[in-house]
Amino acid sequence: MAALPDFDIVLFGGSGDLAMRKLLPALYHLFREGMLAPGARIMSSARKNMSLAEYRASARTQCGAFLGQAFDAVKWESFSERLFYFPLDAQDSDSYHSLKAALNEHAERIRVFYFSTPPSLFPVICSNLGRHELITPESRVVLEKPLGHDLKSSCEINDLVGGYFSETQIFRIDHYLGKESVQNLLALRFGNALFEPLWRREWIRDVQITVAEQLGVEGRGEFYDRTGALRDMVQNHLLQLLCIVAMEPPSSIDPNAIRDEKLKVLRSLRPFTAEDVATKSVRGQYRSGAINHAPVGSYTDEPGINAESSTETFVALKAEIDTWRWAGVPFFLRSGKRMPERVAEIIVNFREVPHSIFDLPSNSFRANQLVIRMQPEESMKLFLLAKKPGDTMALEQAHLNLDFAGTSQTRRLDAYERLLMDAIRGNLTLFVRRDEQEAAWTWVEPILSAWSASPERPKLYAAGTWGPAASTVLASRDGLAWNEES
Amino acid sequence: MAALPDFDIVLFGGSGDLAMRKLLPALYHLFREGMLAPGARIMSSARKNMSLAEYRASARTQCGAFLGQAFDAVKWESFSERLFYFPLDAQDSDSYHSLKAALNEHAERIRVFYFSTPPSLFPVICSNLGRHELITPESRVVLEKPLGHDLKSSCEINDLVGGYFSETQIFRIDHYLGKESVQNLLALRFGNALFEPLWRREWIRDVQITVAEQLGVEGRGEFYDRTGALRDMVQNHLLQLLCIVAMEPPSSIDPNAIRDEKLKVLRSLRPFTAEDVATKSVRGQYRSGAINHAPVGSYTDEPGINAESSTETFVALKAEIDTWRWAGVPFFLRSGKRMPERVAEIIVNFREVPHSIFDLPSNSFRANQLVIRMQPEESMKLFLLAKKPGDTMALEQAHLNLDFAGTSQTRRLDAYERLLMDAIRGNLTLFVRRDEQEAAWTWVEPILSAWSASPERPKLYAAGTWGPAASTVLASRDGLAWNEES
Repeated sequence: MAALPDFDIVLFGGSGDLAMRKLLPALYHLFREGMLAPGARIMSSARKNMSLAEYRASARTQCGAFLGQAFDAVKWESFSERLFYFPLDAQDSDSYHSLKAALNEHAERIRVFYFSTPPSLFPVICSNLGRHELITPESRVVLEKPLGHDLKSSCEINDLVGGYFSETQIFRIDHYLGKESVQNLLALRFGNALFEPLWRREWIRDVQITVAEQLGVEGRGEFYDRTGALRDMVQNHLLQLLCIVAMEPPSSIDPNAIRDEKLKVLRSLRPFTAEDVATKSVRGQYRSGAINHAPVGSYTDEPGINAESSTETFVALKAEIDTWRWAGVPFFLRSGKRMPERVAEIIVNFREVPHSIFDLPSNSFRANQLVIRMQPEESMKLFLLAKKPGDTMALEQAHLNLDFAGTSQTRRLDAYERLLMDAIRGNLTLFVRRDEQEAAWTWVEPILSAWSASPERPKLYAAGTWGPAASTVLASRDGLAWNEES
Repeated sequence: MAALPDFDIVLFGGSGDLAMRKLLPALYHLFREGMLAPGARIMSSARKNMSLAEYRASARTQCGAFLGQAFDAVKWESFSERLFYFPLDAQDSDSYHSLKAALNEHAERIRVFYFSTPPSLFPVICSNLGRHELITPESRVVLEKPLGHDLKSSCEINDLVGGYFSETQIFRIDHYLGKESVQNLLALRFGNALFEPLWRREWIRDVQITVAEQLGVEGRGEFYDRTGALRDMVQNHLLQLLCIVAMEPPSSIDPNAIRDEKLKVLRSLRPFTAEDVATKSVRGQYRSGAINHAPVGSYTDEPGINAESSTETFVALKAEIDTWRWAGVPFFLRSGKRMPERVAEIIVNFREVPHSIFDLPSNSFRANQLVIRMQPEESMKLFLLAKKPGDTMALEQAHLNLDFAGTSQTRRLDAYERLLMDAIRGNLTLFVRRDEQEAAWTWVEPILSAWSASPERPKLYAAGTWGPAASTVLASRDGLAWNEES
């Protein structure tokens, strides 16, 4: 890997969960691999009044716990010398002075502002950065979700941030796009002549995208209850994954060429009518149940949740893409909390052979299935039928490991490492463009509206199951079934 | 594996090379795996007057050397109790009496006559078997190559044998068809929906089939000098492999359904005109050179070879198949003696991506290549480009191992084991039907005629090289190159 140029990164929300669990560990890994130029600085800011020593100690403890075996006390010490802390009240312009002074020591440098704060703070941070003339031509801003609550609020955020940063300076992060297996899917599709001919309605029966968590709302109750699974997961992550699967071959690797193709997919998604919402969407809410054999409570018993809440903790959709390539191929999307396992995967089910001359093994249901896993481990497997060794022409199920990263000696990059490097280098390919984000909102809004207009409540499902029975029915209406194999 | 029914197998040529190196070792392996029913008998016959004890001792020594580590003295002793010897002059009807008496002890049994003798003996063996009424409804005959020297002599053999055995009793063996990797190609092609759509002119650029030996004529000089590489290798083995690659999906696994499709391929091979012979065929003959750094002599210096011989020890052809599926896709065939390595392989070169958005690695020449090896080891690999792990979107060459048998615990069946079992069970799928054999002769005859009519001699090539330069030119005329990677 080529080392990064000198840069300063400013983490707003620098004492928060994301900084401690993802961003600082990612930067630490980059440091260990010699990617950080000697002058690179990590400038955390948060409201809390702490000394630099206190912040470093706190980061050491929190990141250390998260890094586990990858934590090396000696290496962390040298890394930690890159780490600075600026107590700052985002709303108080005066409190930006010490950050400003530090940044201006290297005014010409690449400067990354990472907004890992609630979006309600974006306007005031932007306006203060503007007022202090901290937004240089070499600056970029990384925005973490949620980016709005609906199309209108999303446009407002984009307008606001767009008043200070040009679109090419805005890096809307979706960490699923930073996953090695997701990028390998692009490499396989467009780097080989073998996959594209198969990658269409003639040969693909259905696509399933699942992002399932075992966790409940984990202290984010108040936020989650205003949000729900459709906004929290589908509008961003699942639709981005759908775009990677469904996009046409771009004409170049240029960020806009790729994002143009993703946008075309989003704009080709068939809009949901009110009737479609009834037949092609399922919303669920978990009731008490068990995860890993331990009892867990119901959603409405979680702290911060209204007992009458009709927020969905599970959503399943049948999406359809109105293009020549995909007409008639259902894309099933589902995401939920309190599922039996933590798994994020894309499943591409190829059609059955049109005529089989062999006796098929009883487990042939996985025949000709491509499984791209992002969680719990990244992997990419192609299931197919091969000759069973021996004296007959019987077939058996086998799989190919297409995940070459898994076999290589190289440590696998975490998605945040990859995406931070891209942001520092100014490579927008794996970040979401404004029009994509807005097209995604445009598509989910009729579903949100129909749900909120309906007197029906989400269907309950026991924690530790794959959602309400209606989700099974959704797939079986097309004669299909969700993949529930590990 | 399901055990075999009781049977008697009669090996004509039972003291020969094939019996000692292939047939008895194959039967020994089947015995060790419990496949031989307790009453199964192996009845060797040859001209030499030996006692049973002498034959068993000779078999023990010869097979033992060939079996190497697989030889177990105790197991061999029990196996050897199945082994009987009948000294017999094929031409002398009286000498069949003891064989006849032994066979008639179990007249109702499956009876396999294995002709591993020169074809000149087939008529007299058949007529003596007929005279002694040894050909029962449960009898089959296995014929080893060479089956004739041209179309006419091949038809004569088939007519003759066909006078005693019906076509469904005749098992023309081509041991390449018994290879696990060759059968796995059938399983992959027709057991999965993934390969068939790619398996055509739109996606395949060329196919290369190579069967190369390091050996010279090894004491078979006289026979070889009358035969040459085209008759010895191409007419049978290479064309059979070509059929497996090129055949349309059969409508069932029924032996005739499969052989019908192979026949269609043979009949679709574009006939060579005299001009084609000049531009699309290359014949070579080795001169002195080196194999594995040891000097070896020229073909014409081998014992039994005429110093003026114009027999080819190397042949390269560009075959074309006139069908919708294969029009415009060259099938390059080559076979030779005294090549740099011993290798038998089928290479399917897929086309390049029509438009590449990635920087390609310098070694991408193998991108999208399927390599099926039968020798020296069986394997099946798909080469493709995948994302290089790390922070860029660079590609690197990788390969998938499609040879699931190689990873399984099961010992791989030798081709002869597989084919002997099929013959005993009466399964003709992997044996060559009369019309196939004759169609293959029909296709090679114009090449043989043009060569023998031409004053040109074969082009010389140094032993230990891949044949004459004209072979390279043959491929390069289509802008292609032979695969010469291990």
